[in-house]
Amino acid sequence: MSVLIVGSTALDSIKTPKAENPRLLGGSASHAAVAASFFSPVKLIGVVGEDFPKKYISLYRKHGIDLTGLQIEPGKTFHWSGEYELNMNNRRTLLTELGVFEKFTPHLPAAAKRTPFVLLANIAPALQHHVLDQMARPKFVVADTMDLWLNIAMDDLVKLLKRIDGFVLNDSEAHQLTKEDNVFAALKKIHKLGPKYVIIKKGSHGSILSGPKGCFICPAYPLHTVIDPTGAGDSFVGGMMGYLATARGSVDANIRRAMIYGSVTASFCCEGFGLNRTIKTTRSQIESRVKELEKLTRF
Amino acid sequence: MSVLIVGSTALDSIKTPKAENPRLLGGSASHAAVAASFFSPVKLIGVVGEDFPKKYISLYRKHGIDLTGLQIEPGKTFHWSGEYELNMNNRRTLLTELGVFEKFTPHLPAAAKRTPFVLLANIAPALQHHVLDQMARPKFVVADTMDLWLNIAMDDLVKLLKRIDGFVLNDSEAHQLTKEDNVFAALKKIHKLGPKYVIIKKGSHGSILSGPKGCFICPAYPLHTVIDPTGAGDSFVGGMMGYLATARGSVDANIRRAMIYGSVTASFCCEGFGLNRTIKTTRSQIESRVKELEKLTRF
Repeated sequence: MSVLIVGSTALDSIKTPKAENPRLLGGSASHAAVAASFFSPVKLIGVVGEDFPKKYISLYRKHGIDLTGLQIEPGKTFHWSGEYELNMNNRRTLLTELGVFEKFTPHLPAAAKRTPFVLLANIAPALQHHVLDQMARPKFVVADTMDLWLNIAMDDLVKLLKRIDGFVLNDSEAHQLTKEDNVFAALKKIHKLGPKYVIIKKGSHGSILSGPKGCFICPAYPLHTVIDPTGAGDSFVGGMMGYLATARGSVDANIRRAMIYGSVTASFCCEGFGLNRTIKTTRSQIESRVKELEKLTRF
Repeated sequence: MSVLIVGSTALDSIKTPKAENPRLLGGSASHAAVAASFFSPVKLIGVVGEDFPKKYISLYRKHGIDLTGLQIEPGKTFHWSGEYELNMNNRRTLLTELGVFEKFTPHLPAAAKRTPFVLLANIAPALQHHVLDQMARPKFVVADTMDLWLNIAMDDLVKLLKRIDGFVLNDSEAHQLTKEDNVFAALKKIHKLGPKYVIIKKGSHGSILSGPKGCFICPAYPLHTVIDPTGAGDSFVGGMMGYLATARGSVDANIRRAMIYGSVTASFCCEGFGLNRTIKTTRSQIESRVKELEKLTRF
């Protein structure tokens, strides 16, 4: 089955003490879509400007991503620029030029409205609602978010939580949303807001799922060197949804393994700037890291 | 087989926004010894003053801990006092009265010198050396440490690392020792200093072992409420060594499972002040949480 993914489609300029990488392909939907494409067909919903490089259109196509829902509007593509410190832990935003993204209203092509798996990647909750309004009874809907929406669009986000099956956020966002320091206490509170499945991402410490079959402690794949963690969270949820869409059986039966596949896909993302390493990844490299994670956690 | 444990034996006064708990039984050796006692016979090496409450001697005895090596000296027992903030994450020391601990020189009773498993719990590296000097070819030696010794006794600690089989430290200490932000890069550097097994503790994020059979990602047992994390690291390594001493087969074959038992023992420690919850724990409660951890990590 296929996955519909809506989110930001952007150009990222990423500076580190060692290198400058201007106008890489970025945005939550780009990372999630490429990650999901390793496992299942993907329909991308997003917007870019007339300046969007043709090579990135080719890149999406090479990954079999359906671009019928990618709007190309007069103006400039969303451009984000950020700088990492040497240890890659601290990031600061240098520039945010919204461009055509400022007035983005996602229009779903007719065929997209019946996609069974829906990933509302990080984007304003109002736009996530707008996508759901157009969908015809999807089988499984997951939303991601970011601190910005907790700050400026909390009402929209809380309403969204009642409309989705799964919610993915990081530990600091979970704290911001629930005022709980304890991850398990936070998970309990988030379930009360609606979602049946809640996943808290903890970066290199892995992630935790709480769902109808209890909790799952999902490890991160061990990396000795992190080149650029931008998009790792999007790759995680994209890989997870791609795997879920293709796996036989219920979501309950597959979600743990889907998270492991998401975790591994995210590990490749961290090993290069932007999508540079992810796009060189093969399915067999993914399978090999999944096997390694099995060995790393067995006792 | 039995475990020899040397470290601090103290009285801990622990303040939180909700309660004051004066003169609890504390210290690295106390926590580690009680944790290890669930699995194997323990010989405790330490020092207390004449003010040391008889009820704590009874408590050690109730756990079958051999106190032949516990010195009772004229003067006061080491007294530490600390205060936690509401979220239990930030702790500040209010008072440290070393008392008889200031001049502690561990003397091993003859029978203790042939103990096969040795845990050098957190104490000055010079004293850890002094214990090893008295041992007759132990089978497996593990040392723990703290940031203080990295600050004031680095030379002694580096020399110790060449004399031990396993080294346990937390992630911030690993960073301090190696200047590496990445845990896996830090593990590699620590192996070069000597120990065959290195374990980095990450609190509620679990721990990571690096050894001859590769890495193991060990989960923390999920706790919804943490009452007092004091001694959790000592309980972890104590439980691990107790399990290792009793398990049939090689250290390589048992160390992963030993860490899981350590992790579970530490979880009980966090659920009460000082040793209050730990001492009420039964072996079957431990087994039940080990089974839960199996379910929580299976995929």
